[in-house]
Amino acid sequence: MSDADPPVEPVRTAVARALEEDLGPLGDLTAALVPADARATAAVVVRAEGVIAGIACATEVFAQLDAGVAVEWLVDDGGAVGAGTKIGSVSGSLRAVLTGERTALNFLCHLSGIATVTRSFVQAAGGVRVLDTRKTLPGLRALEKAAVRAGGGVNHRGSLSDFVLLKDNHLAGIGITEAVRRARSRWPGRAVEVECDRAEQVSEAISAGATMVLLDNMSPDEVVSCVKLARESMRDIFVEVSGGVTLENVHRYAETGADAVSTSAITQSAPALDIGFDIGTEEFAEG
Amino acid sequence: MSDADPPVEPVRTAVARALEEDLGPLGDLTAALVPADARATAAVVVRAEGVIAGIACATEVFAQLDAGVAVEWLVDDGGAVGAGTKIGSVSGSLRAVLTGERTALNFLCHLSGIATVTRSFVQAAGGVRVLDTRKTLPGLRALEKAAVRAGGGVNHRGSLSDFVLLKDNHLAGIGITEAVRRARSRWPGRAVEVECDRAEQVSEAISAGATMVLLDNMSPDEVVSCVKLARESMRDIFVEVSGGVTLENVHRYAETGADAVSTSAITQSAPALDIGFDIGTEEFAEG
Amino acid sequence: MSDADPPVEPVRTAVARALEEDLGPLGDLTAALVPADARATAAVVVRAEGVIAGIACATEVFAQLDAGVAVEWLVDDGGAVGAGTKIGSVSGSLRAVLTGERTALNFLCHLSGIATVTRSFVQAAGGVRVLDTRKTLPGLRALEKAAVRAGGGVNHRGSLSDFVLLKDNHLAGIGITEAVRRARSRWPGRAVEVECDRAEQVSEAISAGATMVLLDNMSPDEVVSCVKLARESMRDIFVEVSGGVTLENVHRYAETGADAVSTSAITQSAPALDIGFDIGTEEFAEG
Amino acid sequence: MSDADPPVEPVRTAVARALEEDLGPLGDLTAALVPADARATAAVVVRAEGVIAGIACATEVFAQLDAGVAVEWLVDDGGAVGAGTKIGSVSGSLRAVLTGERTALNFLCHLSGIATVTRSFVQAAGGVRVLDTRKTLPGLRALEKAAVRAGGGVNHRGSLSDFVLLKDNHLAGIGITEAVRRARSRWPGRAVEVECDRAEQVSEAISAGATMVLLDNMSPDEVVSCVKLARESMRDIFVEVSGGVTLENVHRYAETGADAVSTSAITQSAPALDIGFDIGTEEFAEG
Amino acid sequence: MSDADPPVEPVRTAVARALEEDLGPLGDLTAALVPADARATAAVVVRAEGVIAGIACATEVFAQLDAGVAVEWLVDDGGAVGAGTKIGSVSGSLRAVLTGERTALNFLCHLSGIATVTRSFVQAAGGVRVLDTRKTLPGLRALEKAAVRAGGGVNHRGSLSDFVLLKDNHLAGIGITEAVRRARSRWPGRAVEVECDRAEQVSEAISAGATMVLLDNMSPDEVVSCVKLARESMRDIFVEVSGGVTLENVHRYAETGADAVSTSAITQSAPALDIGFDIGTEEFAEG
Amino acid sequence: MSDADPPVEPVRTAVARALEEDLGPLGDLTAALVPADARATAAVVVRAEGVIAGIACATEVFAQLDAGVAVEWLVDDGGAVGAGTKIGSVSGSLRAVLTGERTALNFLCHLSGIATVTRSFVQAAGGVRVLDTRKTLPGLRALEKAAVRAGGGVNHRGSLSDFVLLKDNHLAGIGITEAVRRARSRWPGRAVEVECDRAEQVSEAISAGATMVLLDNMSPDEVVSCVKLARESMRDIFVEVSGGVTLENVHRYAETGADAVSTSAITQSAPALDIGFDIGTEEFAEG
Repeated sequence: MSDADPPVEPVRTAVARALEEDLGPLGDLTAALVPADARATAAVVVRAEGVIAGIACATEVFAQLDAGVAVEWLVDDGGAVGAGTKIGSVSGSLRAVLTGERTALNFLCHLSGIATVTRSFVQAAGGVRVLDTRKTLPGLRALEKAAVRAGGGVNHRGSLSDFVLLKDNHLAGIGITEAVRRARSRWPGRAVEVECDRAEQVSEAISAGATMVLLDNMSPDEVVSCVKLARESMRDIFVEVSGGVTLENVHRYAETGADAVSTSAITQSAPALDIGFDIGTEEFAEG
Repeated sequence: MSDADPPVEPVRTAVARALEEDLGPLGDLTAALVPADARATAAVVVRAEGVIAGIACATEVFAQLDAGVAVEWLVDDGGAVGAGTKIGSVSGSLRAVLTGERTALNFLCHLSGIATVTRSFVQAAGGVRVLDTRKTLPGLRALEKAAVRAGGGVNHRGSLSDFVLLKDNHLAGIGITEAVRRARSRWPGRAVEVECDRAEQVSEAISAGATMVLLDNMSPDEVVSCVKLARESMRDIFVEVSGGVTLENVHRYAETGADAVSTSAITQSAPALDIGFDIGTEEFAEG
Repeated sequence: MSDADPPVEPVRTAVARALEEDLGPLGDLTAALVPADARATAAVVVRAEGVIAGIACATEVFAQLDAGVAVEWLVDDGGAVGAGTKIGSVSGSLRAVLTGERTALNFLCHLSGIATVTRSFVQAAGGVRVLDTRKTLPGLRALEKAAVRAGGGVNHRGSLSDFVLLKDNHLAGIGITEAVRRARSRWPGRAVEVECDRAEQVSEAISAGATMVLLDNMSPDEVVSCVKLARESMRDIFVEVSGGVTLENVHRYAETGADAVSTSAITQSAPALDIGFDIGTEEFAEG
Repeated sequence: MSDADPPVEPVRTAVARALEEDLGPLGDLTAALVPADARATAAVVVRAEGVIAGIACATEVFAQLDAGVAVEWLVDDGGAVGAGTKIGSVSGSLRAVLTGERTALNFLCHLSGIATVTRSFVQAAGGVRVLDTRKTLPGLRALEKAAVRAGGGVNHRGSLSDFVLLKDNHLAGIGITEAVRRARSRWPGRAVEVECDRAEQVSEAISAGATMVLLDNMSPDEVVSCVKLARESMRDIFVEVSGGVTLENVHRYAETGADAVSTSAITQSAPALDIGFDIGTEEFAEG
Repeated sequence: MSDADPPVEPVRTAVARALEEDLGPLGDLTAALVPADARATAAVVVRAEGVIAGIACATEVFAQLDAGVAVEWLVDDGGAVGAGTKIGSVSGSLRAVLTGERTALNFLCHLSGIATVTRSFVQAAGGVRVLDTRKTLPGLRALEKAAVRAGGGVNHRGSLSDFVLLKDNHLAGIGITEAVRRARSRWPGRAVEVECDRAEQVSEAISAGATMVLLDNMSPDEVVSCVKLARESMRDIFVEVSGGVTLENVHRYAETGADAVSTSAITQSAPALDIGFDIGTEEFAEG
Repeated sequence: MSDADPPVEPVRTAVARALEEDLGPLGDLTAALVPADARATAAVVVRAEGVIAGIACATEVFAQLDAGVAVEWLVDDGGAVGAGTKIGSVSGSLRAVLTGERTALNFLCHLSGIATVTRSFVQAAGGVRVLDTRKTLPGLRALEKAAVRAGGGVNHRGSLSDFVLLKDNHLAGIGITEAVRRARSRWPGRAVEVECDRAEQVSEAISAGATMVLLDNMSPDEVVSCVKLARESMRDIFVEVSGGVTLENVHRYAETGADAVSTSAITQSAPALDIGFDIGTEEFAEG
């Protein structure tokens, strides 16, 4: 188990679902046309610079499809590679290689896309941490959050039951102080984060006992002011900046002293990384 | 059931999975802090111009979460709307509205993103059809293919068992003529498509009895030549163009006479459409 | 993966379901009475002439039940064998052999029954192809369609999303020409089949661009006339005959020039092939 | 809940699986071509004399597919009907009626086929009970056993964990007396049945404390002798006759005094009952 | 949704599993013997003083079993009731009431047992919070953690992915300071708890930046010393006491100033609360 | 497969569910902090005298989590061990050992708790059998019933479809004689048990043909009278005593001549057996 690995069950069930979905009721009509005894080796090649994620899924695809297929990797999740890099190989029955190719690549390309965009943000952000959000694709969260880790990012809440994040609609009618009090009373020990639009809210949140503040849609200057409030509090307040953070402007937040920026761009809209199979079929004569 | 609707079971199971994933073992820690009897109405508002898809999923989220929540829609899947358009509303317990918000939006934003990019391609393509591919996200294919239809696109294979598509690796060692013969023999009646890199292959595929040709990575001029071959055959050959088709160059293929272009850009890398909930909480006094 | 193999996930999930169903909450009460260390070898013997299918399922039964059981096969799916033929063997713990016996046989007998009836039809049909239908047992379609292939038959639609088949109720109110136009427009490239009761419909379907016609409940003479229409069209029309095709009369359709006959008899009502385990228990002394 | 109803969960999960299987990733391509607002009413009509089973499944198909479809039944499971009888109706969106038709019928035809064959055996058997076996189709046992009840049959073991049935392979090396002793010791209170090939075994089984004997492949005369042994024992021994029981010879066992005959013919090889939808589409004008 | 409610999906799936498990392949053999049209009303009565939990599960049992059964509750989860209290009623078909009784009670008795023991600890603990642990029954965690909340307890980690808890085996080879540094670096913002056996570890954990300390197997006096260290730190350290906390000695920890005690006794070994159905059958005459 | 083993599928699915539940979306946050290449060996040690059950589950936890972890056992399910006994060992990656520890122990502690209480009852009961009930935890019945067997107990019904048990509410309106008649008619061959509160009912049940009587809440003297009735009947009546049986009074029933006592105490409220991992980490230097 490497650091960025997803938990095992989500890998197993996502792969089983994906294979069932792609093979359909009749299986691979086209692969059934090639000789049953033909064997092949596919090089898994990255066609554009990026960061790899999803290796456990790709391995699992062939493990479930055909135990006779050997899969080897030259990099781990989190590995940064240039265009044209061979990152692994898949050898076995030509039919199995052809049938599993797309499913394996659908995982690899999507998850590596997330890792790659995350890495870009991380590099652009300087020392500020890059957090993901709950804006992930239904059924793929555990895999996507692992891909964020592979890209050097940090996971915000895995689910609504991790810790408390009070947004404006939670605060309506009760206010920050009361909401934080309730949070600390009902879910003691856990992080309590408060979304703030302006400095007064930050002050109130800190006084109330919040452990994290989420500065939403603030300018870098506003962030600087709020970070100051947090640091002056003498408490260990985690300052997260969110809303409108882009690859272009993220460096400006790096200088504010905030602890992290968060963005849905690294999951929800990350383009797939272009990865392909270069399949070499061995000589064969049909019998 | 509207034309673009996904099948029912994938909606039900994807939503159940998504809710389990997002609520976690303890449920929504934060929503539990707002008054149990507070009620709210959320306007579902599109924040950028786009095409809507995923309505059945968003409805199902609240149906599974809390039968007391009313969900109404002002558009159907496939509806094109401008930034700021209210497309629906969700009313009920404030807790349920808050808890279901992100899961509903994760479906809506992702699937509407696909529909929106598809619509852009369809509009840029002129009269040429826009096909999707099997480059979809594991476990979400049925939903993503429905979103492509919502965007005016056309579905290529739903799974490997729909029809035959012979790519270069399938042809290795047996050749087009033999491969098509096998395909027609083993899977008679179904479409048989052959991926071709050059005109000679198109001729051979047509002679062999293929019903579709996929022109891979050809220039518009090459496509024109191949379309000519297809039309001269007097058979009803479906000509698909693939590889390197972009929003910028797709119009150039529209003039070639090809029947369709296909691109993974409409699924695999479609950015999410920005959609949000504007939640209005009713006056409430805690008891 | 042999040609007739079912896809992997349906095998795995059907076997898991079957074992859970047959072992019940307490497991095999009776097998628990035999000595834990007794070992046995069962010959899998076909008691009536037939064609084998379901080998992957039978293998999977013991793989899931007890990894220490060795399963070997002397034939592949599709193999035609005479009464009394030993087709394989199962060796291991006597308890596991006894516990898995019925589940393995339930798959083998049912699927081999389908393969056997299919083979009979194929032989009686002469050169005409024998197609299955969607009249399969719920949850077993992928396995049953593979058994049809094992018997030499050909798969018609795997699901409603494979290709278009317009029956009379689809045509009501819109007519063949319009229905085919819609089909070709919405699902371009795919096969479009039209069910026809009489020759005029065949002509209309062909003119409209259908690629397959299903001649329903026609006499062989009517079929001959319709085949003539299809062949005169100079298009590549697949002619399927359906309705009232029996083992007795199928040869009469073979002479009509049709491409295929289809019948639910090969799936829905195929009697099980009689296959059994001949278990030889090794000498043992209880400790 | 009527007497012959299957348990609820198997109905729900079998229907969900069947719909997912039949709708495929793209849904019903053909139904999508008919007008979205067209409505229809289908009469469910039995085309051959038989006994109905599977009504709960057919109802569930439309409940899961489209809550707007109304399903009504004129008979219950177990109802005997003549050819041409309308047994129910399905009304709603034409698309939903067309899409659900085959799945609903696959349940109805298969399960009614079982009920019908069971009823034939029951009638031919006179006063002797007709038992089913564990020779059922994987994943469908609960539904098939309910269909047997609908046909007037009686359920033998639902799973291996119901009660004890000692066959020859269980007896090898330990013998009847010891095997029955173990069974009564380990699973006290439950039925213990012993498979017997000859009269001496019946005597031994009864002496050992078995509560049921299964007379395997005996002639009616041999059965008479064994029944006599059972009745003379003054214990309440249930005598089951199995092996080679057919519709033709079952009456001969009725006169032997045995309590029941069992046969796999009523499940494993029961031909489907021919049931169809007669769909009447209402007038509609497309908008 | 009340405060102590479990998330919806775990309720649905646990109930579906439980019903499938208890009804078995043949359904309720015994309930099938009572008249199909008999109706009954069951009072759900608590036979011993306790706190109620599991109402959502009991309601769901009948919703899944028979939509015609009406279930009403006189208390909510968390309600404390005396022996003999009627807490709800179930009315409908006698068969359904009998069939669902045990499954509904299995949830209610187990979860109310947890709530009841939790309440006892909460009352004995005075102002100190009572935390649960991850020592829950496989597959029932979400329900058991909700029952703890119903009893007035507080949830510690829902899963290993909530926050960090460093136990001695995690510290081996790296030490507290380094381990906490890693935790804060990799999972910033989240709670970081360190298990401590002695005061020096508490000091080190606080200096390193831990937000929670778990005092394991300490005497009340040792706890007092450690609490003093935590409070002197001027940081907001959550002090949890664990190991050997019993209903008898928990009050001694209440006076130490610790924030919470945790114990597996409230989940892992809580005896079921005795709850039963008092069923009144209405007069009926069989037809 | 040992005698007390649970069926395979419940083990596999319960473990998969438990791991998914405990690892959560992000996996084990804490284990990710220890060196990836550190290895460890854990001794599985019982901290209190008891009987072991659940070994198959604990083995399966690590098989699913990390195939590189070796698990060995020094006892089998059913083994009675003293406090401090090492019952097995788990060796492999430190991360995997730490991550799987709690899930493996949750199975072992709960199931061994059941086996231990069962063994206590068995020993206290003298020669009378100890039966379990259907008062088990939802989703865990197969595992809990296997644990009862491990403890020397005997399984009563696995599900409602095993055999007939007529309780007072089933008898209302029809009476014992008629109810037993129906049971024997509809479910012939199976055990039919009647719950009796007083001797007259026992007589009626026996006359009616019941094979088991459940003497509910009777004093030992009443039991003696009822056993006499049963033995005088010359039929093989299984006499079960239930209601108010405790570890303290169970011996008094041993002298009544009844065949068995049943109690929910051995499942529903069995406290967990204290079992832990003693983890020894090997020397490691981080690279």
